[in-house]
Amino acid sequence: MNKITILIHCKDRPNIIASITNFIAKKGGNIVYIDQYVDREQNIFFMRLESEFSTDDFSTIDFKLDFKNDLAETFKMKWRIYSSEKKPKMALFISKYDHCLYDLLGRYNSGELNLEIPFIISNHSDLKPIADNFNIPFYHIPVTKTTKEKAENKQLELLQKHSIDFIVLARYMQIVSSKLISQYPNKIINIHHSFLPAFVGAKPYHSAYKRGVKIIGATSHYVTEELDAGPIIEQDVTRVSHTHKITDLIAKGRDLEKVVLANAVKLHADRKVMVYNNKTVIFT
Amino acid sequence: MNKITILIHCKDRPNIIASITNFIAKKGGNIVYIDQYVDREQNIFFMRLESEFSTDDFSTIDFKLDFKNDLAETFKMKWRIYSSEKKPKMALFISKYDHCLYDLLGRYNSGELNLEIPFIISNHSDLKPIADNFNIPFYHIPVTKTTKEKAENKQLELLQKHSIDFIVLARYMQIVSSKLISQYPNKIINIHHSFLPAFVGAKPYHSAYKRGVKIIGATSHYVTEELDAGPIIEQDVTRVSHTHKITDLIAKGRDLEKVVLANAVKLHADRKVMVYNNKTVIFT
Amino acid sequence: MNKITILIHCKDRPNIIASITNFIAKKGGNIVYIDQYVDREQNIFFMRLESEFSTDDFSTIDFKLDFKNDLAETFKMKWRIYSSEKKPKMALFISKYDHCLYDLLGRYNSGELNLEIPFIISNHSDLKPIADNFNIPFYHIPVTKTTKEKAENKQLELLQKHSIDFIVLARYMQIVSSKLISQYPNKIINIHHSFLPAFVGAKPYHSAYKRGVKIIGATSHYVTEELDAGPIIEQDVTRVSHTHKITDLIAKGRDLEKVVLANAVKLHADRKVMVYNNKTVIFT
Amino acid sequence: MNKITILIHCKDRPNIIASITNFIAKKGGNIVYIDQYVDREQNIFFMRLESEFSTDDFSTIDFKLDFKNDLAETFKMKWRIYSSEKKPKMALFISKYDHCLYDLLGRYNSGELNLEIPFIISNHSDLKPIADNFNIPFYHIPVTKTTKEKAENKQLELLQKHSIDFIVLARYMQIVSSKLISQYPNKIINIHHSFLPAFVGAKPYHSAYKRGVKIIGATSHYVTEELDAGPIIEQDVTRVSHTHKITDLIAKGRDLEKVVLANAVKLHADRKVMVYNNKTVIFT
Repeated sequence: MNKITILIHCKDRPNIIASITNFIAKKGGNIVYIDQYVDREQNIFFMRLESEFSTDDFSTIDFKLDFKNDLAETFKMKWRIYSSEKKPKMALFISKYDHCLYDLLGRYNSGELNLEIPFIISNHSDLKPIADNFNIPFYHIPVTKTTKEKAENKQLELLQKHSIDFIVLARYMQIVSSKLISQYPNKIINIHHSFLPAFVGAKPYHSAYKRGVKIIGATSHYVTEELDAGPIIEQDVTRVSHTHKITDLIAKGRDLEKVVLANAVKLHADRKVMVYNNKTVIFT
Repeated sequence: MNKITILIHCKDRPNIIASITNFIAKKGGNIVYIDQYVDREQNIFFMRLESEFSTDDFSTIDFKLDFKNDLAETFKMKWRIYSSEKKPKMALFISKYDHCLYDLLGRYNSGELNLEIPFIISNHSDLKPIADNFNIPFYHIPVTKTTKEKAENKQLELLQKHSIDFIVLARYMQIVSSKLISQYPNKIINIHHSFLPAFVGAKPYHSAYKRGVKIIGATSHYVTEELDAGPIIEQDVTRVSHTHKITDLIAKGRDLEKVVLANAVKLHADRKVMVYNNKTVIFT
Repeated sequence: MNKITILIHCKDRPNIIASITNFIAKKGGNIVYIDQYVDREQNIFFMRLESEFSTDDFSTIDFKLDFKNDLAETFKMKWRIYSSEKKPKMALFISKYDHCLYDLLGRYNSGELNLEIPFIISNHSDLKPIADNFNIPFYHIPVTKTTKEKAENKQLELLQKHSIDFIVLARYMQIVSSKLISQYPNKIINIHHSFLPAFVGAKPYHSAYKRGVKIIGATSHYVTEELDAGPIIEQDVTRVSHTHKITDLIAKGRDLEKVVLANAVKLHADRKVMVYNNKTVIFT
Repeated sequence: MNKITILIHCKDRPNIIASITNFIAKKGGNIVYIDQYVDREQNIFFMRLESEFSTDDFSTIDFKLDFKNDLAETFKMKWRIYSSEKKPKMALFISKYDHCLYDLLGRYNSGELNLEIPFIISNHSDLKPIADNFNIPFYHIPVTKTTKEKAENKQLELLQKHSIDFIVLARYMQIVSSKLISQYPNKIINIHHSFLPAFVGAKPYHSAYKRGVKIIGATSHYVTEELDAGPIIEQDVTRVSHTHKITDLIAKGRDLEKVVLANAVKLHADRKVMVYNNKTVIFT
């Protein structure tokens, strides 16, 4: 049994859905999931579709070719087709905070995440023992002002060597370069420890404390050139009060960061996120 | 422009989606919304679909007939087709509490609810002035042990006379009879002031207080023969603490009841709810 | 039975609590509620205390005088003492949106709010019928660029004539002047339709839609000179998705605004809010 | 600097607060935290108080003795006095699920928990490697029908040997005996994977799925003789929909269980929980 996931967006016009479902039917596929959304303001059609093919001679490559010729060009679609056989490969970038790391590896171990983690990169060696416990290769690539470019080249080399599909910055405390961003557009997931767009930049819990907010949040988003301004994938919040010190906000925030980042990773790995106009469409 | 909404459920099997979308395409319809869900355990397929027909000579009656013959019988579908021209008609049953009434009428007035309210029925006359302010006919039908059957007949008469589509019990403090339930299956929406299945029956806030829960809830569900055991449409909760007295729970609960009932009413009126095996499928 | 509420803040130092409780005991009072908080960073002590006096000859004026001489001056306290006999008087400023108005008046009617509403002021006459239904005097004071100062003088006159204690801007769409703010410092409560400090200023739902946030919020705060930057009293949020249009955000936001504003009003009316350094201490 | 925490409950009557604060003042203590609550229905007074003593010759034992004679007997108080020097000792009982274990040990490691963990007991050896990684002694005590009593004696021996203050059942899949409960009254914390009192007993996620609830929860409570009926310390919930399979509920539930249990453990370890009439008073 072959199973593929199709993501599409294009200008909206009549009969797109019927054309696609017809195409799948002719190819002998059984649609097991279909969801679609139209942004009426922009007049853009978005679709996510899963189809099963029971024929032995099904070829994803042939299917893609025909899809491109018969369908995608007619409707001027932007599209991606994934085979369910191939799990996405995720690289973890970390620094010294361990809470998101423990959380993601715990979920990975329990089978909750539909992905592979070929390696972990950190600019510090502190968390190597955790990577070792979970049997995941750990590369310590220090980053200083003078070595930054060299470090990035090393990172890129590892990413390419392992055919990494997407990168997760699990409280990686460095700003990633334009070079990396341009090679992984909408494929670098960051967790920011505030309810964006409030408290962009460094020390958001300190800013939240100072402003006296009654709710704090965490935001997972794709990394773009502008700091903390990329498409938002997931957010969550929790109540705080005047009795909470900054250290309390940080501790409560850790729980948010873990869950928000994990949800964003799951959505991305399950190919449920589409990006358009710096916003995300999240399929269920 | 004609617009219809189709709700379907049937045994799952290959090619249902393609068959339906093809049928719509042949009829000249443009699908503007499609969502589907398969209960893998029960092997049941559910779909909600909206389609627009720009042809002048479109007839909902003809469409339904062809749908039945060409599609529904082949797949042994249970189905409903609604024309967007016809807003559903909702009867409000109330008693002495005014919070859900004010809330629903406020939303109705602001255009938030896609429905008509031909009348309000109450077993007390206390809230008549509110109905008057919103210019909605109010029928005072007292209910006592001896007059219960007579009262129900009067209710049924009104419901039929106004071709009511569904009934909302907005803190109507009476248990409705089997007769009414059987005539409006999955069409009577109740708001229960607890997080069901906890605290079934009378005085749930008192029971919640006694048990010392840290969160209270409200549940909107379809009325079935068994008390507070019908399919759940919507639930919501709020935090409480030991400092809250029963009167505080009741006050906090009012806010929950309003929002939960309003959401359930909107979902039902927008034909986004399907019932199967005493559970609901809620389309987005 | 006389009951008073005392709010205090002063520099923290040993024995404040014992001194206060002793003072109350000597005066024959029974403390029925005491809560305190110390901001360790600023070294400020905050306290809220309720005490009952059963003696017939208890005089709030005498109590205040002795409190000032025996206690407040020693500890250099900022303090307020309220008698529970006197309900605070709240002026409602509204414009054309009715949802917060209906909500507050519904709660007022049900006895949920421990306050009096001597009158409602609006710059439009649209909502006068609602005020009439609830039997509350309604003053239509139009505001235009040229009449702004005159309108404000009229507002101030009414506020003083009725000895108003605090003002609630229930979606009053005007920026209030420095004059009004300076006469009612930390006594003007506004509801802003965003999760502050995100989306300050006009059209926050439009900004939230554009940024693609996954959660929207509402914030109730005291009005200060700087727009939407005053001490936050209460905030709440709700989830949204890419499927929600701006009108949906507005509709969902209405539910937030109502509850957040009502909670802030209750906290203020119950004298549970203290302001310090542009932040609030909220007692339970 | 000595710091003590006092927890008191007794029949409410005038002047308790003044008497206590006076007593502390006479002993040279400075009150740094005071919170109190009166259950008006039961007429019970509850208080939590923290006091610092800067004198070198302060003796907790002497203080307790005088407190008993001068205060506790007069007011017929139930009371406990803790010295902040002595961290509470917590025994962890686990089985095969690792999520709560990883979570608690991660927090323990980060310094978030104000307690000591002398050892972990499990009826299976599967999770020993995790205990080893965190350098915590691990005792594998298998439990079968025939060995149950013997196993419990072994547990009790360990608990006594290490002067354990409280026990946490972190998804320990065994019902603990009356013997253990009676020796640790309101000192055994369990995490139940439902929103109690809904879905008492085994397989609550299966029951929640069957009932079609729209929200699932987790509850941390003290263990009493009656199954899942002890005083509730903490609860939390999360939204689910018809699209979630039982495995999804279980995965989402894991996130709830971790946070709810951790919060309950923190509250207990910080001596912020008092139990009365099978309910908890939770101080802030």
